[in-house]
Amino acid sequence: MTLVQGLDYAAVFIFGLTGALAASRAQLDIVGFIFLACLTAVGGGTLRDVLLNRDQVFWIADAGMILSASIAAVIVFFTAHFLESRLRTLEWLDALALAVAVPAGVGVAMALDQNWPIVLIMGVATGTFGGLMRDVVCNEVPLILKKGELYASAALAGAVAAVMTAAVTDTTLIILLICGVTTFALRIGSMLFGWCLPVYKSHPPRQ
Amino acid sequence: MTLVQGLDYAAVFIFGLTGALAASRAQLDIVGFIFLACLTAVGGGTLRDVLLNRDQVFWIADAGMILSASIAAVIVFFTAHFLESRLRTLEWLDALALAVAVPAGVGVAMALDQNWPIVLIMGVATGTFGGLMRDVVCNEVPLILKKGELYASAALAGAVAAVMTAAVTDTTLIILLICGVTTFALRIGSMLFGWCLPVYKSHPPRQ
Amino acid sequence: MTLVQGLDYAAVFIFGLTGALAASRAQLDIVGFIFLACLTAVGGGTLRDVLLNRDQVFWIADAGMILSASIAAVIVFFTAHFLESRLRTLEWLDALALAVAVPAGVGVAMALDQNWPIVLIMGVATGTFGGLMRDVVCNEVPLILKKGELYASAALAGAVAAVMTAAVTDTTLIILLICGVTTFALRIGSMLFGWCLPVYKSHPPRQ
Repeated sequence: MTLVQGLDYAAVFIFGLTGALAASRAQLDIVGFIFLACLTAVGGGTLRDVLLNRDQVFWIADAGMILSASIAAVIVFFTAHFLESRLRTLEWLDALALAVAVPAGVGVAMALDQNWPIVLIMGVATGTFGGLMRDVVCNEVPLILKKGELYASAALAGAVAAVMTAAVTDTTLIILLICGVTTFALRIGSMLFGWCLPVYKSHPPRQ
Repeated sequence: MTLVQGLDYAAVFIFGLTGALAASRAQLDIVGFIFLACLTAVGGGTLRDVLLNRDQVFWIADAGMILSASIAAVIVFFTAHFLESRLRTLEWLDALALAVAVPAGVGVAMALDQNWPIVLIMGVATGTFGGLMRDVVCNEVPLILKKGELYASAALAGAVAAVMTAAVTDTTLIILLICGVTTFALRIGSMLFGWCLPVYKSHPPRQ
Repeated sequence: MTLVQGLDYAAVFIFGLTGALAASRAQLDIVGFIFLACLTAVGGGTLRDVLLNRDQVFWIADAGMILSASIAAVIVFFTAHFLESRLRTLEWLDALALAVAVPAGVGVAMALDQNWPIVLIMGVATGTFGGLMRDVVCNEVPLILKKGELYASAALAGAVAAVMTAAVTDTTLIILLICGVTTFALRIGSMLFGWCLPVYKSHPPRQ
């Protein structure tokens, strides 16, 4: 198993947990949990693979991926009631999944020798689209549109860090580690300490 | 015309009717009816074909598909006001379309010799994504997230029945028939008699 | 640069402006602006390229596209507060982008020698899906579903005009010009003078 495959596995499992938590908030049955878990888990990586025209989407090439997301769904189905706040847990796991999925996207694009703008986009898209689909399907305001939080910014910063690191070293492990740590630190810092970029403000009220 | 093409045609037409009924609820004009009908009709099969990397998406290979969805839209535009409840009709037709589209997805995946987890996913995805896109675009809670109804579960059960039948016979007709009947029986049973799987319930209120 | 590439550039830039305006209404930060601008800008063309199975999605083949959408986002971030009504500006720019993106879709499909129903669909899909994704992600009722306005109809009429013009001339410039002008005239006429097609009306209230 390559490093990027390992990241794909981790992202699938953790995003699967968040999808299942969303399903618990919608009070679905076990198959609904598995459905939302799989959609969230493979959404970002599927977009990446379709856009890059890879021979096979990653979870068709390796059936263990879907199994992994389904196990995440079953675990949540039987344990979510132990959680104090499912929404808060969902947000923390989503941050972790983001920090794993961004390097997975970056890694695949780099392995295909894409130029750096495409590497950035694949990092951000792989990181964000699973969660975006989860939120859109559940008819909730996507986390990525939450006012005054770093989300797309954290993903982009992680991808930029990877591209910059790649200029000084060839070691994939270091590149992707710095990518993931940057993403996670910014996202978590935003959730804990309110770190943010200036947001757009208009003087007249929204119309 | 092969059996699977026939199923694709039927799914396109019936899903087209449901998309047009959704358009009638949004009071669109005739082109809006055709737009929503086509989106709903080909959504699931398009996802299947893109994921499986088929040479051509099924409705590009055969322009009759779009014609078929458009005819469904025109029929609904001129007759929907005869219906007692358009929402109730939409749900019944959606159940029928699901029971036709799941075998269409299963049949294509089996013909490409995919392993069984992929066959299950293609069945469920082909069956559910057209309706899901219809509901998301219309900003309604997707049918698939409706509490206490079999929907994803009915689709999955149909696909599982197909895979199990394929272990004892090679006849595509029998495999896909059992798949469709299982899906339809469970979905309709759920609508009529309230059949359902236990849903997730938390003791503290949703937060 | 071919004519169709030029149209893709223009569509990307103008749709990028509309995506950024939507971001301003959601009060995002600069990276959120770039994210929504890019999503809106390349959404339609990406769908077209994936459906037509082109070797490379247009913005992966040419990194200038993403740069162009990002510049649009930055411009809006720093100037949107000068606008009297951002919603009204968004709708006008969206009309312009539609009138550029429909010919871009038609042009690509014609260059690939697709038959006319596919040409129509690619025109409508390229024109409408970027804006549709913008509205769905922002959890707003899509412009395309707005009651009593020509939107899908304007796009379809433009594509039909292109197909009919192609029957009498081979000059791509003329074909695509007529396509864009038709789309723009109908959409703007609808916004300014209330032009519309009869909409579906049921006698009993919506249920």
